[in-house]
Amino acid sequence: MADEMYRNVDAAGLERLVADLFLHAGLSTADAAFMGECLVDADLRGVHSHGTRWAPRYVASIKAGHLNPNAKATVVVDRGATAIVDGDRGVGHIAVKFAMEVAIAKAKQFGNGTVGVRNNSHCGAVAYYAQQAADAGCIGFAATTGGTMIAPWGGLDRRVGLNPISWAAPTGLGFSYNLDMAPSIVAGSKIEMARDRGEAIPADWGYDADGNPTTNPSDIMPGGGTLAGVGGYKGVGLGVGADILCSILPGGRYHEGQDPTVGGGMIVQAIDIEHFQPLAEFTGRMDRMVAYYKSGRKRPGVDDVYLPGELESGRAHARVSAGIPLDQPTRASLRSAAEDAGIGYTIELPSHS
Amino acid sequence: MADEMYRNVDAAGLERLVADLFLHAGLSTADAAFMGECLVDADLRGVHSHGTRWAPRYVASIKAGHLNPNAKATVVVDRGATAIVDGDRGVGHIAVKFAMEVAIAKAKQFGNGTVGVRNNSHCGAVAYYAQQAADAGCIGFAATTGGTMIAPWGGLDRRVGLNPISWAAPTGLGFSYNLDMAPSIVAGSKIEMARDRGEAIPADWGYDADGNPTTNPSDIMPGGGTLAGVGGYKGVGLGVGADILCSILPGGRYHEGQDPTVGGGMIVQAIDIEHFQPLAEFTGRMDRMVAYYKSGRKRPGVDDVYLPGELESGRAHARVSAGIPLDQPTRASLRSAAEDAGIGYTIELPSHS
Repeated sequence: MADEMYRNVDAAGLERLVADLFLHAGLSTADAAFMGECLVDADLRGVHSHGTRWAPRYVASIKAGHLNPNAKATVVVDRGATAIVDGDRGVGHIAVKFAMEVAIAKAKQFGNGTVGVRNNSHCGAVAYYAQQAADAGCIGFAATTGGTMIAPWGGLDRRVGLNPISWAAPTGLGFSYNLDMAPSIVAGSKIEMARDRGEAIPADWGYDADGNPTTNPSDIMPGGGTLAGVGGYKGVGLGVGADILCSILPGGRYHEGQDPTVGGGMIVQAIDIEHFQPLAEFTGRMDRMVAYYKSGRKRPGVDDVYLPGELESGRAHARVSAGIPLDQPTRASLRSAAEDAGIGYTIELPSHS
Repeated sequence: MADEMYRNVDAAGLERLVADLFLHAGLSTADAAFMGECLVDADLRGVHSHGTRWAPRYVASIKAGHLNPNAKATVVVDRGATAIVDGDRGVGHIAVKFAMEVAIAKAKQFGNGTVGVRNNSHCGAVAYYAQQAADAGCIGFAATTGGTMIAPWGGLDRRVGLNPISWAAPTGLGFSYNLDMAPSIVAGSKIEMARDRGEAIPADWGYDADGNPTTNPSDIMPGGGTLAGVGGYKGVGLGVGADILCSILPGGRYHEGQDPTVGGGMIVQAIDIEHFQPLAEFTGRMDRMVAYYKSGRKRPGVDDVYLPGELESGRAHARVSAGIPLDQPTRASLRSAAEDAGIGYTIELPSHS
């Protein structure tokens, strides 16, 4: 049964495995441990498109010299409530987490803080960084450049970044509001996952290289097609906005058309709630808002109305003990990376069937 | 030909007429002049859903005692780079313009400024306020609560605000990037305009009161139906985020389910570009980004690829001299309001046909 599509893996074991892979690739113990925690967090929340499936790819990028394992993210511009962080071409998550720590500190001092990141690489699910702010009593915003995968409105060629944005805010209910969305109908990783699994995609997800709707994920990745924006021009316009905030403002170079996977940019922002009202008052109002949302009729077959982030939070709590269902390509890729590094691969839980 | 659907009106004359209507309703000369400029700006840009068609409605709200013509928007909480403005139940535009002036001043001092607005009313097109920031060398963000017109994801009843958001940033090309979008496929005003014109709407714009797709705008407004979010749950999640930023953070009361047209909230934010890099460097990079966007192939029949805000800006320039094509219901409503106030109605230009 080693080749079944989904198999449960132990969350703590997966976190150790990923940390060990990064440690072996040359990261510091602290950075490697953070990468284990950060990537497993996405898998726990069910966001596998940005989870541990990326670990072998990052490790390969380090080995190929594209990513700097000894990177030290530093503040290179520091002016009042704003800053620019240089990622030193490290694994992208590390610099963005650091940048949000700076933004939160500035928010606590000034009320809000905006920190741009440049010279960085793929940083995974931006929800993680917005959540840092929510956990610190702030409203968080985070966005990153993705690859140029969207055509400008009226165009056919890839020009606009597939740039996800995330907003987060705390409640008193054990989960945070946390919206993490690509400006497209789906994230690029979902196209890749469908391709890797040999599955067709809905015809409204994107276009082939000539602008025709397609159900074949390979027409888009690696076929050179484009992804459709949410609400048409609205999604494209959100992608443009994130290009400006993530790349142009911090001095990244993505917008000039170069490969964004190295030298990409991000923006993080925190607004301190206590500058507006006591935190307990804010979360109380959030809780009443959630109750109001949930007070209406539900669609047939729907068990409840969920806030963005609520289902993901509940899923994460359950998976800490029940395990994470990980797909076969991800397991195979992690096992192979572990073998290359001489690390034991003992994350799979006994099958229930 | 007085009842033809569209007729050109003189932009300067329309601005004077609207200002005179507000002056007659009791606003100060300065506030009335601003309302003329602000509402005509939306018509000039082609955003008629938020233009002068609203003037008679605001005037009626003042006469009915719902809006305070002598309102004085003031800063009631001022902490570092953040503030809360109380709109004093005036015509909403006035307090939000003031709030963005405060946010820009804070951005110039601290790098970024976030200002919430409460006790305010409908403020028209949020693009106007984001543009204030762009014109001041900042990246601007503005959002407002709209009516509760969206169902939570999985729900059937109106609970989430139809809250538009706008981002703006300057270029060196004579127009700004300016995205102004409702979290729904279309703004509520477009449903009303279709209804007023007796037109059907596409079936993906919204649902009737029982959650079924509908092509009859009256099923939604006033029929109690809901509007569909862009990208499904993504649009709903954006609406929730704006509920949090506009209503919960500044201490508005909209989220508890009351009528948002009085007592609504807004958020405005400015990020000073010079805190990150010289403005000329930023606009130079913006211009190269625009050139990169425009360098690809175009869809058949498309004359160019446009940035959000670019078409609107070009349209506004042309309409200053050519006139604004205003629809019959808007003209009739303005004429009637002018007659009620004893003001001459001389805005219609000679027909070209």
